[in-house]
Parts: sequence; structure tokens; C-alpha cells
Amino acid sequence: MTNDLQTRAINTIRFLAADAVQQANSGHPGLPMGAAAMAFALWTRHLRHNPVNPKWAGRDRFVLSGGHGSMLLYSLLHLTGYDLPMEEIKNFRQFDSKTPGHPEYGLTPGVETTTGPLGQGFAQGVGMAMAATHLAEEFNRPGHELIQSHIYAIVTDGDLMEGVSSEAASLAGHLQLGRLIYLYDDNHVSIDGSTDLAFTEDRCKRFEAYGWHVQTVADGNDVDVVDAAIQAAKADPRPSFIAVRTIIGYGAPKKQGTSKAHGEALGDEELNAAKQNLGWPLEPRFLIPGDVLEFYREAVERGRELETEWMKRFEAYKQEYPELGADLERRLKREFPRGWDADLPVFPADEKGMATRVSSGKVLNVLAAKLPELVGGSADLTPSNNTKFEEAGDFQKDNHGGRYFRFGVREHAMGAALNGLNLFGGLIAYGGTFLVFSDYMKPAIRIAAISGIPSVFVFTHDSIGLGEDGPTHQPVEHLMALRAVPNLTVIRPADANEVAQAWRVALTRKHSPTVLALTRQNLPTLAIGPFVKLDHGAYVLKDFGANPQLILMATGSEVNLIYTAAQRLFGEGIETRVVSFPSWELFEEQDEAYREYVLPKHITARLAVEAGATLGWERYATSVLGLDHYGASAPYKVIFEKFGFTPENVVARAKELI
Amino acid sequence: MTNDLQTRAINTIRFLAADAVQQANSGHPGLPMGAAAMAFALWTRHLRHNPVNPKWAGRDRFVLSGGHGSMLLYSLLHLTGYDLPMEEIKNFRQFDSKTPGHPEYGLTPGVETTTGPLGQGFAQGVGMAMAATHLAEEFNRPGHELIQSHIYAIVTDGDLMEGVSSEAASLAGHLQLGRLIYLYDDNHVSIDGSTDLAFTEDRCKRFEAYGWHVQTVADGNDVDVVDAAIQAAKADPRPSFIAVRTIIGYGAPKKQGTSKAHGEALGDEELNAAKQNLGWPLEPRFLIPGDVLEFYREAVERGRELETEWMKRFEAYKQEYPELGADLERRLKREFPRGWDADLPVFPADEKGMATRVSSGKVLNVLAAKLPELVGGSADLTPSNNTKFEEAGDFQKDNHGGRYFRFGVREHAMGAALNGLNLFGGLIAYGGTFLVFSDYMKPAIRIAAISGIPSVFVFTHDSIGLGEDGPTHQPVEHLMALRAVPNLTVIRPADANEVAQAWRVALTRKHSPTVLALTRQNLPTLAIGPFVKLDHGAYVLKDFGANPQLILMATGSEVNLIYTAAQRLFGEGIETRVVSFPSWELFEEQDEAYREYVLPKHITARLAVEAGATLGWERYATSVLGLDHYGASAPYKVIFEKFGFTPENVVARAKELI
Repeated sequence: MTNDLQTRAINTIRFLAADAVQQANSGHPGLPMGAAAMAFALWTRHLRHNPVNPKWAGRDRFVLSGGHGSMLLYSLLHLTGYDLPMEEIKNFRQFDSKTPGHPEYGLTPGVETTTGPLGQGFAQGVGMAMAATHLAEEFNRPGHELIQSHIYAIVTDGDLMEGVSSEAASLAGHLQLGRLIYLYDDNHVSIDGSTDLAFTEDRCKRFEAYGWHVQTVADGNDVDVVDAAIQAAKADPRPSFIAVRTIIGYGAPKKQGTSKAHGEALGDEELNAAKQNLGWPLEPRFLIPGDVLEFYREAVERGRELETEWMKRFEAYKQEYPELGADLERRLKREFPRGWDADLPVFPADEKGMATRVSSGKVLNVLAAKLPELVGGSADLTPSNNTKFEEAGDFQKDNHGGRYFRFGVREHAMGAALNGLNLFGGLIAYGGTFLVFSDYMKPAIRIAAISGIPSVFVFTHDSIGLGEDGPTHQPVEHLMALRAVPNLTVIRPADANEVAQAWRVALTRKHSPTVLALTRQNLPTLAIGPFVKLDHGAYVLKDFGANPQLILMATGSEVNLIYTAAQRLFGEGIETRVVSFPSWELFEEQDEAYREYVLPKHITARLAVEAGATLGWERYATSVLGLDHYGASAPYKVIFEKFGFTPENVVARAKELI
Repeated sequence: MTNDLQTRAINTIRFLAADAVQQANSGHPGLPMGAAAMAFALWTRHLRHNPVNPKWAGRDRFVLSGGHGSMLLYSLLHLTGYDLPMEEIKNFRQFDSKTPGHPEYGLTPGVETTTGPLGQGFAQGVGMAMAATHLAEEFNRPGHELIQSHIYAIVTDGDLMEGVSSEAASLAGHLQLGRLIYLYDDNHVSIDGSTDLAFTEDRCKRFEAYGWHVQTVADGNDVDVVDAAIQAAKADPRPSFIAVRTIIGYGAPKKQGTSKAHGEALGDEELNAAKQNLGWPLEPRFLIPGDVLEFYREAVERGRELETEWMKRFEAYKQEYPELGADLERRLKREFPRGWDADLPVFPADEKGMATRVSSGKVLNVLAAKLPELVGGSADLTPSNNTKFEEAGDFQKDNHGGRYFRFGVREHAMGAALNGLNLFGGLIAYGGTFLVFSDYMKPAIRIAAISGIPSVFVFTHDSIGLGEDGPTHQPVEHLMALRAVPNLTVIRPADANEVAQAWRVALTRKHSPTVLALTRQNLPTLAIGPFVKLDHGAYVLKDFGANPQLILMATGSEVNLIYTAAQRLFGEGIETRVVSFPSWELFEEQDEAYREYVLPKHITARLAVEAGATLGWERYATSVLGLDHYGASAPYKVIFEKFGFTPENVVARAKELI
């Protein structure tokens, strides 16, 4: 292509973005205008994708970690032929458009991740690279390199300042994830002003310290230099960090290079001045010169060829490796093999029982044997979370086939990486830490929920029942905080059999993440065998008497407590229903008749018992025995007793209601 | 002292810790045994403290960021003469002891910060150093160097892996906080095993990249070398990172250097073997040789001298600078000057009104003029959060007198640093970001709440009302998640006058943190002038009719909405009470009579309206108009309408109740 065409092609991105922001009178023109050239280099010379089939499994992934620059991505998607018509560009940031303020996975074809909260894209990309690396080891065979994906991202100053990126970068360096190629939009500007105000660390040296391959590009508008750097990055076995010096809002004469170009429309005057400055027609807005469009749309044919060629190779692969091929196909569709849950363990009733973290470990072992796509890890709490199944080798730089991730003490990066692992396709990924540390990864949990990513979060040590580690480690408000997150399923199983069902539910919910809240301490296995209706969210564990006048409901470790209390109440002539209530979200999905059956309106005496914040239980109960203060450091039986989680107190509280 | 005495003094720490863990049969012997020698070097040769007055303002601060090693700290406190008798050491991890599993600020004399959740101590220390640096600039005068504190910490592999530490370290390097001296307990072991499993970055290089002064100590048991490194650190103007190679569980023949020494009692056999190994008597447990105790207790006399000498200098200072001296005294007591809130603005009723983030900015300006101790900042959202008051210069390495902090896009480090700033004394610190990003700093908010630190968190853009930035930036579940946190006061003011009172309340709550949830969008100023009862948490804004049969309640931006709806309902003959409900926590503190007055039991038709998760409102209302799904990217008025936040819908929902 000619230099002129290239320049105009890049300016097309700049002004599509600036025009859309101007039309919405809201948005971020600075990033697209500054990063247009590097995006051009990446998208037209490297990125392997198929605009007509954004879900082609062989594609590279592109992550716009600075999601506020969404118009850069929308421009590229429109120009290269994705199903994102000009109408949508013109409807930028309007209700029901496919072009929201920040990119949303699942809404817009070609958007690989939901980004905007800074650092999330960076860290999700690391998870994607882990997935690609693992799948390549699992499926690629000599002469059959099916899995070749690179993970590209554009990351910003804000991304690099966020701790989650530091965690993820350290992990990526440790694992030597060579498929990662990150372009750093080094524009020296953040919202408050110059990065000199707050961000003067030596970024390149920092990434070298993490073990990354580091390059710099002095002029971000020099497409050839960016191109060469990407080529060098591909050739290097380490993850690559390319610091590209750009000018935010490039072209806008008064605002470029300043924070004024960051987060608001340029204004008609400055927008026009920018167009004049770069030799762009003032009218019409949303201009795409014919030859520019023609050039970009070559991506459609190229994408078709890439996918066709890949499909051919996949066919040859299936000829050669029919079982592997079938397995990969199945997994990419996120279908389960027949009988995947047939061997879920059934635990006999047992007064001593076991911690639900322990039964979780047992269930995991069974599932992992049936589901080769099941991979997981822990944020350095493996022996506590029981997240490692027996046959899981460690995923390390010299063992890409390992199915177990040593995330280190990096909960936030773990959460985001799990999202990336699950987004990539072909894997089901879970990760563990203590429930109290769900706080450390909350933004990643939210991204999973908002994007419909089926990450499974295994949170053990789920109450004051963890004992001596004390208040800093004892969750109180966390269950309720997680229940308040839309599209997140929180399950707190009461015993080993509920745990088995909880895992089944978690894996079958393909469009939302699940939290499993598990105990450190032993819980009796209740005498209910495989008949637990955990998937109904709440169910009648037992009616003591034919006409209960009282309902006791509880979750997790408190179910056995109310069971004992109900026995005593019944002994005193008070007929009592015991409801195990492992999941609010699952219960709310049941029909009205079932919910009325479990919690009949006419029984108004209802006591909920949970070793956590009471806030919220009023939805189901008239009284709550909970915990609205912090815990204590002591053996757990002492704590439960001191804080009133005893059969005596439950009985007393229940009697007050009738 | 003799080498022998020194060795025994260090071993005393080791075995006090190991014995206490053994007695509790729970805890972490590995860190205290490995880090005893460096702690010895720090505490006996450098740390300026007064065991008899742990609150002496001139002291250095010691932060045990790896809070799981609490027995190291408890041993040092007991040995050097703090009010922590042997009884408490023997009651380690027992109910009501002063020696919980992880150190708790406010519970144990000499514990400067609550630690345990990793990274929090590291980042709080950075806040303390910011405080010391600022106060030194403000108060020190030639020949009167009152503020000399160094901030020492022992930080662990886990601390360094956490993102919050990366954020804080980058900030500390940027600000060149030379008062920071961090000893890194480089023991090559984490819970999962060797740090080779997950943590192989070049830590020293990383800290050099942040701009720290970096040293290594090859043998962590060599007291003199540690001592020399601390001396060099003190002499260097940069924050100092000293990587000290240690052996976890030093002395335990089978477990030392392995993860088995980390988080459980050694067991009688291994404990005895360790004692034999280090030439320590097997019995009695909790042995403190007389000469060792005598040596450590010299800290009492030295501390008394240090404080006496400091008080003398303070007296001289007050002679020379009476106003400054009086101001410092007042501030150290966290007392307010007379009339500090006399000029709080009163905003006239105004239909157009202003965003509560804007009125917050105006109030801040007034308060900042009266309270020189008021300092604050934002995580790179200054122009959005309106957190900068006019006379606030930037706190930077060349301007220590600045009262405004440019935290960068580092919400988590900001939260923890605010805690450190407030803990240090002499300052009142607040910080701003968007409410949705409270998730990024949740662990720091929890530390503030659990420790009773009065940090003020200014969270703007508090609902879908932020508009076009869309779902990733629109909080939904956050208000409820924060309300569930014990000892945290959440205030969502309805207009400018409520904002003024909200700030007053926030600053006067000296033992708990406060969240202010503020709008991006304009809100009318309601006609209630200075008579708002915001400090009551909820109050009757207006009764439409003498005998309301319906209560509408709302917070923040939805108060005006229910007000309008109530007018219409009254027009249709339905007498309605309008309750502004800015703070649940404040309302719960009112007496029963007041609460009954505002929400009389006999009015059972009660509709709560809040643009957030409905979960929890059942506590006060029979019906809730809220938001149990994610928001949308669009102009905010469109979003409110699409999601039912209209007078028409409120009227319709209300009528269903009566």
C-alpha cells in the first residue's frame, strides 16, 4: 500500500473515534488518536482473525486493556468487516447500542473481553496465554500446530499502575508466556495530568525484573518500527512488553499531549482543527474513504482463508488423532463427555464428617478424571484450599501440560487469569483462596459476572469457623457482598453431599460464575445421601412434625446446628421445618410454587442462621441469628459458642418467634 | 553485650514464639524463628520507641507486614517491656487474649497496625511515611527536628507478590520517601512450597525500578551486617529495601527451610530437637533467661530517656513557636479547633442544584481552611472526584508541604496509605475514586473498619447516574456490600446540604471509617437548609398530609425522585411520608423512640427506592425499587427512565402497597 493510503487508513481510525465521541458528546478520543498507528500495525500486519467468524478457535486474541479507548476497537471492528455497522458507531454510548462506553464481552462481535476497570484486560490476557500454552501442549503434534494463538493487548499507564497488572506480569514472567505481546501506550498522560505527577518508575526495568522481553519504540506513529518490534516479540520466547511512545489525542492542535484529550469530546472547533491539521476533510463526519475501506476489508478475505486453511489442518489432525480431535471439538463447544458426573461421590451419613473443603477436594478428583479440560489452582493456599487433584501436574514453564496453577499470593491476578482461561475456550478453570480474600479479587469476580464467564471461585475458610487465625481472616460480610453481585451464583454447601452437587451445578452454569463457600472445620455428613436438592437453592431437609409452625433455615456449617436445634424444639412439642439454603440465586430461579412449598407464607415464624452479616436475610426470615461484628482469634468451637451459635441459643431465639 | 548473650537473646525470641505456637497448637513458628536476628538488630539497635508509652508521638513505627508472624512481635513487645505480660503470651490465639493470630491495632499495646491480609502492612507503612514526611515539613524548624520517625517494616514473599505492595512501592519510590526502611524476609518459602513455584522475578531489580535504595544481606542471622544495612538505609534519601536471606523455621532440624515450618506448630519432637540444635534448654517452656530479660528491658529506660529528651525539645519548640506547638498538640490529640465547622456552607433551595461531588468539593474547601490537618487525594480522578481543595499544593518529593496526594491509578495502595496516614497521628486523610472502584480497595476499607481507623473514602459516580461510561463503571451492589462491613459508616447524601453534614459526621467519627457516596449528576438542592438531620441517619423530609398511610424512603439521588412521587400521590389523595435515608449505620445508632418516630410500625406500606441492589432493604421496607442487574451505557436520564426510576413508576409501585 502507498504511504498516503496508510496514513489515511490510520487517520480514519482517529477520526471515526473522535467523531463518535463528539456525536455522543461523551467518551475518550485521546487513546484512539494516539494509538491508531500501532493498532494499525498490529491489526493489518499481525493479528490473525476472521471478522466473519469472530469465534474462530484458531484466532489470535486482542485485548484493549485500556477499555476507555473503546472507539479504537469499535473502529477497527467496523473497518475490518465485523458485524458492527456504521449505525452502531454513530450510536456510540447510547442505550441498547453495541458500542457502549467500555467494551463488553458477549455484546459486540469481536470484543474478546470486558475491559474498562484498569488492569483487568492485562491480567485476563495472561490467563488467555496460559490457556493457549496449555492447549498447545495438550493438542499440538509435530506438523499439526493447531493452537498458535498469540495474545495481543494495548495497555495503558493506568493499567500498569494497577496492582493486578503487577501480579499478572510477575506470573507471566515466571511462566515465560511467550505468546503474550503487550503494546504499552506510553503517552505520559493520565487523568490528573502528566504521569510525572504520580508515575515515574522505570517501567521497562520493572518488566525486565519480571522476566519479560522489553523493547521501546520512540515514535508510536512509525508503523514499520512498531511492526518490527512485534516481529521481534513473536520470535522471543519470553512475554513481550513494547513501550511505544505515543501522543494522546494526536493531531488535535491544542489538546494533544495533555489530559484534556483523554476523557471528553474534543469539541467541534478542536475536532475541526485536528482534521485540518492532519489533512482530513471536515465533512462528512464518520468519513471512510473508499480505498481505505477496501483496504481494511481485505481482512474479511484473509480471515476466511486463515480459517479455511486452519479447518483443513484440523481435519487432517482429526484423521491422524481422532480421539484428540473429537475431544478438542467437544471442549471448544464446552460440552461435557457422556457420564461426566456419573461417578460423583455419594457420602454416607457420618456424625464426624469432614470439612467441605475436604469433600470438595474429593469431588474435584473425580471430576478431573472425567474432564481433562478441568484446570485450576490456588493463590498459594493449596494445602488449605484442597484445590489440587492428584493427577494434576504443575503448569510451569517447563511443563505446559500441567493442569495445576501456582498463582502465588496473587488473588487478584488469579481471578482475572481464571476469567481469561475460561474465555479462551477449551478449558474450565477454577481457583481457590480464603473467602475473606475474595475482597482482594472482587473486581475480577465482577468482570466474570458482568461478562457471563463461568469461572469457579473456590473460597474456603468461610466463616469464624476457621478459628485461631482471627478477625483479619474471618469473613463476616463477604457472603452477603457476593450475593449482591448480579449474575453471580453463591453456594455454601452444608455437607459433603451438597458439595458434590455444588460442583455439578457450578460446572453446568455456562454463562455465569460461581462461588463455592467451604469450611475449614469438619461438618457432619447429614443423612440425605444423593437426594439433596442443592440445585433448587433451598429445600426441606426435614420436617420435624407434620405441621411445622416454625421454619429454621441455614447455610453451610450452620445447617447441622439448626438440625440439632429442631430436634430439641420438636422434643418440646414445637413442630419445626429445617431448610437447607445453600444458594439464594438458585432458589430465586425456582418457580413460585416450589418457593411457596419450601417457605409457605402461612409459617411466619422463621429464623435464619448464618455465621455472617444478617443484612439481607430479612428477605426470607423474620429473625436472623448472624454476625454483625468481627470475629475473634480462638479455637472455633469457642468462637461459635461465645457468639451464640449453639443449639441452646437457636432454640431460645426460635421460641421468641412463636 | 557478649556474643553469647546476643545469641541467647535471639533464641529467646525464637523459642517464645515456637513455644506459644506449640501451646496453642496453632500459628506460624517459621517467620519468628527465621527473622529473629534481623528483628533483634532493628529493635535493639535502631528502633526509637518507649515501651511504657506506646503512643509517644516521636517514636519510630514498626510494621510487621507478614502478620502471621505475630509471635515475633508479641515476643519483642513482651521482652522490651510493653504491657503484654507472659500470661498473654501463653494465651496466644485464645479468646479474649491480647495475642490474637494476627496483630490487631487497638487491642495490643505496641501494635501499630492490623496486619495479616498480605500487603496491607507494606502499604500502610507508605502512608505513615507520607504522614511523617509531611508533618516534618510542616512542623520541623532548624534546630527543632521534632518529627524524625522512621517507618520500619518486615515484609515477606507474600507481601511482595500482592499487587497492593507494588502500587505502594511505586508510589513510595515516586515520592522518595526516605523514611521507609523495609526488611524483606527473603526465605524462599511460601505456603505452597518453594518460591520457585511461583515467584522467580528479580525482586531487587523491581525495587530499583521503583526508585528504591536496594541492599542485600546474604545471612539473615548476621546481626552486624543487618545493622550496617539499616544504617546505610537511614543515610540514603530514598526508601530502602533490604533483602535479607533467612531460613524459615531456623533451628528446627527437619522443618527449617521448608513450608512445613510456616503455618503450624512444630510438634513436641521437632520443637525439642530445635532447642537441642540451638543449645536451648528443653524445659521450662517460655523460658526467658534472666540476663536476656535484663538486656531487653533496657528498652524501658532508653525509651523513657528518648521520650523525656523529646518532650524537652517539644517544650523548647513551644517556647519558640507557640502557635505551631499548640497546633501540633491539638492535632496529635485529634481535637478540632474551635469553630471548625462554623462556616460549613448552607445551600439555598435550588431546582437545578449541583452534583453532590461538586458540593463535596465546596465543603472540602471550607473545611480545609479551618483544618490544616486535613489532607487528601485521589486515585487519578481528581477532576472527577472534586477532591482537591484550592489551597492544597501537591505533595511531591520536592514539596513535602503539599496537602494533596496524587495517588495515581492505585486505589488499593491509596486505601491502605490513607489508613497509614490516619494511624500516624496529626493528620486527617481522605481519598477519592469512583464508587465502583471501591472493589479495588476493599481489603484496605476492611482494615480501616476492623482497626477503627477514621479514613474518609470519597466515592463519586455512585450509581447508573454516571451515564455513558456504562456497566463496568456503574456500581450496583457496592452500597450494600459496604453497608455489610461492620464498623463502617456509609453515607449517601441527597443534596448539597446533606453533603455538608455528611462531611461533619465523617470527621467527627474518630474510631471508624466513613464512605461518602456522591453523584456525578446534578441533584436539586431541597428546601431544607441547615435543618437536615443527616446525623440521625434517616429523617422525615416531609409529610404530605397529617396522617401518612405510606412511607417512601430513599437515599442520595433518589430522594428527589420520591419527593416528586409523593407530591403526585398526595395530589391523588394518598397521604405520604418522605424519608431521606442517607445512612443505615447512623440510623441504627438512634434510640428506639426516634426510629419508631421516623418509621412507625403501623405504617406497613413502605417503598424503598435506591439505584442499587435491593438485597437488604427488606429490613426497613415492604417493597423495593432497585436494581438487581447491571446498568447500561447511555445518557443518565435515559438509563433512569429505562430502569424505572421515574415518578410514574414510583407512584405505581407505591399504589400497589396500599
